[in-house]
Amino acid sequence: MPRIHFQQQLVALKDKLLAMAALSQQALHLSVEAYITSDMGLCDHVIEIEAGINAAETSVDEMAYDLLAKEQPMAIDLRFILSVIKINGDLERIGDQATNIAQRAQILNDLPKISLPVDISEMGEKVGIMIRRAIQSLLEADAKLAESVLAMDDEIDQMNRAVQSELVEVMQRQPAVSSQALNAIIVSRNLERAADHATNIAEDVIFWVRGSDVRHKFSLAEAD
Amino acid sequence: MPRIHFQQQLVALKDKLLAMAALSQQALHLSVEAYITSDMGLCDHVIEIEAGINAAETSVDEMAYDLLAKEQPMAIDLRFILSVIKINGDLERIGDQATNIAQRAQILNDLPKISLPVDISEMGEKVGIMIRRAIQSLLEADAKLAESVLAMDDEIDQMNRAVQSELVEVMQRQPAVSSQALNAIIVSRNLERAADHATNIAEDVIFWVRGSDVRHKFSLAEAD
Repeated sequence: MPRIHFQQQLVALKDKLLAMAALSQQALHLSVEAYITSDMGLCDHVIEIEAGINAAETSVDEMAYDLLAKEQPMAIDLRFILSVIKINGDLERIGDQATNIAQRAQILNDLPKISLPVDISEMGEKVGIMIRRAIQSLLEADAKLAESVLAMDDEIDQMNRAVQSELVEVMQRQPAVSSQALNAIIVSRNLERAADHATNIAEDVIFWVRGSDVRHKFSLAEAD
Repeated sequence: MPRIHFQQQLVALKDKLLAMAALSQQALHLSVEAYITSDMGLCDHVIEIEAGINAAETSVDEMAYDLLAKEQPMAIDLRFILSVIKINGDLERIGDQATNIAQRAQILNDLPKISLPVDISEMGEKVGIMIRRAIQSLLEADAKLAESVLAMDDEIDQMNRAVQSELVEVMQRQPAVSSQALNAIIVSRNLERAADHATNIAEDVIFWVRGSDVRHKFSLAEAD
């Protein structure tokens, strides 16, 4: 198979991954919207998108495996394909987080409506920016932009911790709203995890572009 | 490079991964122990092990990338190396969950001691069994054993949901213990996530041994 064909296949693989990224980004955005507005139709839509994300994940992986098996790529092309496989997994997990948030919105809808002193919407927007930047850094092979995503992760961690301590106080003052407060705590953790996945994507972009492994150099623990 | 040398390198890669698996398994086991007994020395130990896990992850990945670049493996060997890369990521994330549990134990230690109507210890043991079985299925290339791990995941999901609804009731009856109850809810979710990673490992073993992708066929959403 001629080398030019291989380069076209790499472009096709990138396009497939970017289409998947758009789905994950949309799912997360809509899930936060659904949570804030209690829009049950939107919840169903997020769960539908997640099914599409799962199918896309399998398809990206198969194409990447195929390229590895048939083309035996070297150096930067190999790093690119390995990065695609990892980013693919992180995008799928962002979809999982979106589904969880949609499920939390469904649970919340059956509880009395109350107002809580936390801004899930702002947190959702910031995480959305992280995901967009991570994907843009992939699109443009821009390691500097990817680094800016790593910096934002700390901010989200802090917001998540603030939500938690604020809402524990609410629970203690008003035990009757414990369910709603716990719901918001879990949504905040889901957003924090989505931010971790955006961070992983940015790290993989840096690995691809620069060939260096930046994991475990910026943050101590990444899990929720 | 002769082919026999390549097979030796694959064995070395598997050994490296199994050593990492032992660390992750130990970290999770000790973190639950630390949480239950409020042993602060054990918490520090878990956090030390996690640093070792992070170093091991980088080392396994580098060896796997090296083999892909230099040996251009085909078919089952390629699938094995790709599975190693994915399993490696899941083992590292089990280490992250263990660290989170240890951090929760540290927070809990500063709060008044109370008794909660949930059995975190039993849940931890079951998740430990899942991780052990997933690793054994890798060691013995046993897809049937890997399938038994997938079946256990539903049980853990149910336990996690039960912990949550039980503890929300506790929060409503006794708001003064909301912090401790939330702590237990989060530990339960960390264990549920560790079980998801064991499930991912089992799926990768099945992919390696049988060449088929079983993701998204057994459960709808895997995230926390």
